[in-house]
Amino acid sequence: MSIKVGIAGATGYGGVELLRLLGNHPEAEVVLAGTESYVGQEMASVYPHLAERVKLTGREASPEALAAECDVVFTALPHGVPMKLAPAVLAAGKKFIDLGADFRLRNTAAFETWYKHKHDAVELQAQAVYGLPELYRSQISEASLVANPGCYPTSCALAAAPLLKEGLVETKGIIFDSKSGVSGAGRGVNLGVHYAEVNENFKAYNIAGAHRHTPEIEQTLGDLAGAPILVSFSPHLVPMTRGILTTAYFQLKNEATTDSLLGLFREFYRDEPFVRVRPAGDLPQTKQVWGSNYCDIGLQVDKRTGRVLVVAVIDNLVKGAAGQAIQNMNILFGLPETTGLLAAAPVYP
Amino acid sequence: MSIKVGIAGATGYGGVELLRLLGNHPEAEVVLAGTESYVGQEMASVYPHLAERVKLTGREASPEALAAECDVVFTALPHGVPMKLAPAVLAAGKKFIDLGADFRLRNTAAFETWYKHKHDAVELQAQAVYGLPELYRSQISEASLVANPGCYPTSCALAAAPLLKEGLVETKGIIFDSKSGVSGAGRGVNLGVHYAEVNENFKAYNIAGAHRHTPEIEQTLGDLAGAPILVSFSPHLVPMTRGILTTAYFQLKNEATTDSLLGLFREFYRDEPFVRVRPAGDLPQTKQVWGSNYCDIGLQVDKRTGRVLVVAVIDNLVKGAAGQAIQNMNILFGLPETTGLLAAAPVYP
Amino acid sequence: MSIKVGIAGATGYGGVELLRLLGNHPEAEVVLAGTESYVGQEMASVYPHLAERVKLTGREASPEALAAECDVVFTALPHGVPMKLAPAVLAAGKKFIDLGADFRLRNTAAFETWYKHKHDAVELQAQAVYGLPELYRSQISEASLVANPGCYPTSCALAAAPLLKEGLVETKGIIFDSKSGVSGAGRGVNLGVHYAEVNENFKAYNIAGAHRHTPEIEQTLGDLAGAPILVSFSPHLVPMTRGILTTAYFQLKNEATTDSLLGLFREFYRDEPFVRVRPAGDLPQTKQVWGSNYCDIGLQVDKRTGRVLVVAVIDNLVKGAAGQAIQNMNILFGLPETTGLLAAAPVYP
Amino acid sequence: MSIKVGIAGATGYGGVELLRLLGNHPEAEVVLAGTESYVGQEMASVYPHLAERVKLTGREASPEALAAECDVVFTALPHGVPMKLAPAVLAAGKKFIDLGADFRLRNTAAFETWYKHKHDAVELQAQAVYGLPELYRSQISEASLVANPGCYPTSCALAAAPLLKEGLVETKGIIFDSKSGVSGAGRGVNLGVHYAEVNENFKAYNIAGAHRHTPEIEQTLGDLAGAPILVSFSPHLVPMTRGILTTAYFQLKNEATTDSLLGLFREFYRDEPFVRVRPAGDLPQTKQVWGSNYCDIGLQVDKRTGRVLVVAVIDNLVKGAAGQAIQNMNILFGLPETTGLLAAAPVYP
Repeated sequence: MSIKVGIAGATGYGGVELLRLLGNHPEAEVVLAGTESYVGQEMASVYPHLAERVKLTGREASPEALAAECDVVFTALPHGVPMKLAPAVLAAGKKFIDLGADFRLRNTAAFETWYKHKHDAVELQAQAVYGLPELYRSQISEASLVANPGCYPTSCALAAAPLLKEGLVETKGIIFDSKSGVSGAGRGVNLGVHYAEVNENFKAYNIAGAHRHTPEIEQTLGDLAGAPILVSFSPHLVPMTRGILTTAYFQLKNEATTDSLLGLFREFYRDEPFVRVRPAGDLPQTKQVWGSNYCDIGLQVDKRTGRVLVVAVIDNLVKGAAGQAIQNMNILFGLPETTGLLAAAPVYP
Repeated sequence: MSIKVGIAGATGYGGVELLRLLGNHPEAEVVLAGTESYVGQEMASVYPHLAERVKLTGREASPEALAAECDVVFTALPHGVPMKLAPAVLAAGKKFIDLGADFRLRNTAAFETWYKHKHDAVELQAQAVYGLPELYRSQISEASLVANPGCYPTSCALAAAPLLKEGLVETKGIIFDSKSGVSGAGRGVNLGVHYAEVNENFKAYNIAGAHRHTPEIEQTLGDLAGAPILVSFSPHLVPMTRGILTTAYFQLKNEATTDSLLGLFREFYRDEPFVRVRPAGDLPQTKQVWGSNYCDIGLQVDKRTGRVLVVAVIDNLVKGAAGQAIQNMNILFGLPETTGLLAAAPVYP
Repeated sequence: MSIKVGIAGATGYGGVELLRLLGNHPEAEVVLAGTESYVGQEMASVYPHLAERVKLTGREASPEALAAECDVVFTALPHGVPMKLAPAVLAAGKKFIDLGADFRLRNTAAFETWYKHKHDAVELQAQAVYGLPELYRSQISEASLVANPGCYPTSCALAAAPLLKEGLVETKGIIFDSKSGVSGAGRGVNLGVHYAEVNENFKAYNIAGAHRHTPEIEQTLGDLAGAPILVSFSPHLVPMTRGILTTAYFQLKNEATTDSLLGLFREFYRDEPFVRVRPAGDLPQTKQVWGSNYCDIGLQVDKRTGRVLVVAVIDNLVKGAAGQAIQNMNILFGLPETTGLLAAAPVYP
Repeated sequence: MSIKVGIAGATGYGGVELLRLLGNHPEAEVVLAGTESYVGQEMASVYPHLAERVKLTGREASPEALAAECDVVFTALPHGVPMKLAPAVLAAGKKFIDLGADFRLRNTAAFETWYKHKHDAVELQAQAVYGLPELYRSQISEASLVANPGCYPTSCALAAAPLLKEGLVETKGIIFDSKSGVSGAGRGVNLGVHYAEVNENFKAYNIAGAHRHTPEIEQTLGDLAGAPILVSFSPHLVPMTRGILTTAYFQLKNEATTDSLLGLFREFYRDEPFVRVRPAGDLPQTKQVWGSNYCDIGLQVDKRTGRVLVVAVIDNLVKGAAGQAIQNMNILFGLPETTGLLAAAPVYP
């Protein structure tokens, strides 16, 4: 099998990470590198690290070309654009995996409220499956349109899933205090990503219900709990390029120990190739998943306050974007889920 | 007036920051630079940035020398050591400001439990005043022995004070999710501060009630609330040298708006020279206080969850250590509290 | 005396550093903060670190206002703009210090070639004095128009001066391999200053005679040697915010020792308050001058190759820009040269 | 084929990078992870990023065990140790690749002078081949004992080779101004690698003929030129984890253009899978080879001074250590040289 892959938005950080990871995929080949700014330019001239590895020239990613030439299309584009590309691709019987937000929220009104953008493809929104394999694997395997999760929500959902699924924690009062590297903001330039403004600096932003990942997190948690959930989600910017660490706070319904909850997590994620549960006393650091598709999770019960704190780390560009998208592609095409992804070992130090 | 200052532990990061700040103090002069590792060496040979600015040679900081030669002694030393120096200095009628933990907790048993160290100077512990001027100014002004607050607790207490003092928030369920630069760990070397381990990495550590600053935070919050308080305090390590940002979560007792609470904070800190309350919609970043004695505070009400989130930033080596210690010295000697401290403007970028 | 200061370009990194440093100047007061993008906005709302320290509102910096309201004008603007402001200010008998390139090169043709910009104020160019106090102090003291040196050229000229002045090295084959932090590129945004592109990266740029600081360096070296000099100047970008380190390579005419040359440097800079010559065996690091107006210099003779290597470090925003500009102001107004500048101690770590 | 690999020094940064890269090697398997500090501990408990990828327990790396169990031994150890392990391994007919300095210099006296250590295995030193495949491939293919080059020398030799081989530049006056990330110093802790000392800092060290890589560089350049060569080699420390950039200065014997010399380099490295020559006007940055085995090279002629400047970048832990060692292993075992190495794509950003 050789899956023909098209990438719309190949020159953003998500797109270029798809190129890196797919370069090691034995069953897939990128045939169309879509770009707006670099049409006609070799990818390797835009990104010198691709020299002698990627022999593609940037092209306009028209719906027609994507539909005609590709078996699967990845979109790494601003919201509002993928919903214009998806119909043609899906109509041609091809698969569509959006790394953006267009199809993540099942509720159209919620999408339009949070993104301030009318949804043009409401009927597709209904068919879309949320592409977090650890929680929605079977739906993904039958889908054609996958909404790849946001980077923050991936870390939050994996930190919360076993606890909510088992009903061990209160659904009220959940807090996700998340910290992300700068690449999560993309390759666009503005003062907020200027090196001299970010370096030796740390900040919170869009806290208290202002960040667009909030409803996405709440949708998944609601699925887990079987009831609506409101959370506090507080994103922060760390002076580093890659990595997300989420510190999640849950109120325990009953007494529990660190060991018993770690046992639960280990059981819950037993067959998951990309979730690694840390031993007691050991909290994960972002660097230990750097460049890889892993989500590492540790936790600690605080007896004094009756809480359990869960710490989850991912590489925002891999498990938080391109890697997870390829994991979804593997599921869509019936391949072993790890195909092409284990070669991207964590790089340490 | 020229206050003769002795520093025990002058070559650690806290000590060398005292040297920097006191270099701009018009009423104080460092006469004794105590050190264990660099006795007989010029400070400027240990720290080249001091060349032609500091003309002191490292000396052993014996209690006798400190008591005899200094009007005030700052100790920036491992816990357990200051309690051996304080008696002689205080007996000689001199002032003593400990930047460490020996005298912060009023409860001896709590000290011995958290620090696993027998307290040798219990009677002095009873005389010590907690040196957070914004909350304990009048006691400090009458004290001889000041326990300079920890870096994390400074940020937590200033974030919480107006809310607890006014009884606007629940005393249960308070969370301080704190993030610190590496200099907070001091100048000692171990794998945890190796550049290649810290750079491009982010981690949590000593969460869930394991960090020694927990009881110190709870003591101050208890004072404010007039009742015992348990908190969740979660420290994290940021790949930067200086700065602490604390994200504090409080459950509101009644509805409140961002504007009304900001008004409360502004009123509470109206006469404070080193607390700056940010306007609505503006959260502070660590860099805006870098190198200075300011604590900048912003907040946001989350109507969805009934919480208020307060974000406080300090430079851990200044307001979190040496700057606050000098602020305390100014109070002890009846000087204007800002003497010598405003020259240390925040350095940006 | 209170010198009324106007800053045109107050919201760039050079301008905001002038605000920081002048905040400690006992004889000067900023009365006009000129800006293009932030007219009508408080400086402290543009830069929160200035809160409660700088009470100025951004204004258009018209030549008329500057001439009428200020005793001295600093311009921190793109080349081509200061030459339009200077005539009115100087005609009003006021002083003018340009932190940019408009008046650095004495040769108009050279300016126009390197900067691809016609010079509008050729007669002023002839009156301008190059503001490197260590080499041109007496001319500066009689000038009204000072061309503040570039950041790289400051480090190169101070590294070379004693050797060339004494004729100890060949004038052919001199190399300046310079490394700079990112703030040297200013506050403007482009992909080249994006955090994710700069962090964990190191690059050379504009080498082999392509950088505009080349002719400026050669002009000063020519003055020192009394003959035209061509140099190799190679700038590099370091993932840090502040600091320049220049490694300078000179071929010795005759044998010399590290000690003898250090003696020469010490003698040459004996009365200089802002040049610190390091002892033998000790090379300066950028961090030891961070935030201050110092230039620290070390050197080492390489007997095997008959070369002497000189290493000079500065903070590019202070001695390389705003600090040196204030040093020049002090000279222009007959103040002690260090006035207001020593309070900016190096911040370490 | 499955090559049984032993690593002595598996828990240093070089060793752990061997583990990462060999994890993708289809023909090799690590069977012995030698360590001094972590005997009996699982590698994945020492380095959490290895969890579920490396199932090895640290063992003492005795010469007997290495000789008995391994087809090839990599040593990533302090100098002086590998020379004690090599005899037994080689006597057993196995291959030995030292990532350290024991066998790099052919001249025993030079080794003993520069490393202040008596050489215990002089006869082996004579059999050792310098493992820079681009220059010594045929010797390596017949060797059993390979001295893997130092990180700095790899970048210097590849920058110089075409020019010296063709005799286009003077052999006198060559300068290598090199800049390295911190991981080059290894995992050992000392104040020099403390985050707060390295971050936001840049320094030169061991310049002017003091660094031990100097004779190694000169040996290779001498081979290329067919005559002894003395160079100036100036190492610097960059606040980043990985990467070396060398700026090399050569005096041209005759006029040449950037294009003609780039043509020469392209021809010289035409069949090299791991050397990428950049187009004119494009200088390589360290990040574009980050995590990979590439050496990227650019150059620029400076007509004004008659020099050519060559810029070469590598990842010091890959092409400068573990990657090159595996490249050598592939040659020793007759495998395609890229086996297992191309999967380690440069990670960007």
